[in-house]
Amino acid sequence: MSQAQSLDALVRALQRLPGVGVKSASRMAFHLLQHDRDAALQLAQALQQAVQGVRHCALCNTFTEDEICPTCLDPQRDAGQLCVVETPADQAALERTGAYRGLYFVLMGRLSPLDGVGAHDIALRRLFERVAQPPPHEVRELILATNFTAEGEATAHVITQLLKTLQVKVTRLARGVPIGSELEYVDLGTIAHALADRR
Amino acid sequence: MSQAQSLDALVRALQRLPGVGVKSASRMAFHLLQHDRDAALQLAQALQQAVQGVRHCALCNTFTEDEICPTCLDPQRDAGQLCVVETPADQAALERTGAYRGLYFVLMGRLSPLDGVGAHDIALRRLFERVAQPPPHEVRELILATNFTAEGEATAHVITQLLKTLQVKVTRLARGVPIGSELEYVDLGTIAHALADRR
Ligand SMILES: [Zn+2]
Ligand SMILES: [Zn+2]
Repeated sequence: MSQAQSLDALVRALQRLPGVGVKSASRMAFHLLQHDRDAALQLAQALQQAVQGVRHCALCNTFTEDEICPTCLDPQRDAGQLCVVETPADQAALERTGAYRGLYFVLMGRLSPLDGVGAHDIALRRLFERVAQPPPHEVRELILATNFTAEGEATAHVITQLLKTLQVKVTRLARGVPIGSELEYVDLGTIAHALADRR
Repeated sequence: MSQAQSLDALVRALQRLPGVGVKSASRMAFHLLQHDRDAALQLAQALQQAVQGVRHCALCNTFTEDEICPTCLDPQRDAGQLCVVETPADQAALERTGAYRGLYFVLMGRLSPLDGVGAHDIALRRLFERVAQPPPHEVRELILATNFTAEGEATAHVITQLLKTLQVKVTRLARGVPIGSELEYVDLGTIAHALADRR
């Protein structure tokens, strides 16, 4: 508790950010008010504009300001390939590789029963409808690019089951030894998978 | 880069918070837009209200919404004692002890030449003017409660020099072994100080 109610309110509001406890929130509020009020006002404006402007692409479900996002509208992309990712950050990572020219579907999360995240909390129904679309939106191949965590694998498994009734080829990103790493320092599970998936 | 400009702007604005890199900023933006837009709007409002409402107490320099903060106005407090702290968080820590009933002076920082924080960046001049005030605002004792870090110690030293010309008793919080700790696990410097300052 400080000598100013609006400062206490700011510390409480900052604590609603993920990973920010009362100590970091206090440090942030002190920094903004003492050294960078301009940053505080800019953040306030950015929050309001993002809440007002950002919605989900009607096709791929990623964050966008338009009905359909620029990637989905790009005529250069192969509309027959659909890569399923958990978040826009994962989509951005794949884009940075420059190795994929198909479309995306962004789940906006992953199944996580322990955290109370079930099939209705991520966009599985919309994914099904997207894949079930008739030509010219027909999907030839669905590439599962959920994370290689227990939850990402479970999500990939559920999607595979969900799409069994549809005539679509489902693939998964290859598991293996990361480029540049020495086997000695790679965990055993990864080596075992790289061995099983050897080409 | 995402499919939405206002999302990218939000990620950049969040990165101006201390201790927040691009990864945490992306995670925060995703969380707010996907799961807690209410928290985003509340934070925006809290930022604006704090920037608009929070200023420095004319007497003790802490953050307050008034000309003089509630602590400085409290007639129950001993106006003859002035405790110098680095930040409002340090002031709050001392208040929680319930062991101090005097007034405070909040430097809003500490001397740190390596970070480019000099005497003009913290409120040393205002502290001097505050201590030099005639009765009834006369300060009998000035208690240095800057942190026991290299920078806090240097700041305390500079204040001691600065106030030499004024007729005021300057004391420092005792250094010693924390309550509840076993000597075996206390660092040697602390034990040496506790030995030297033994009562
Ligand atoms: Zn899209
Ligand atoms: Zn005050």
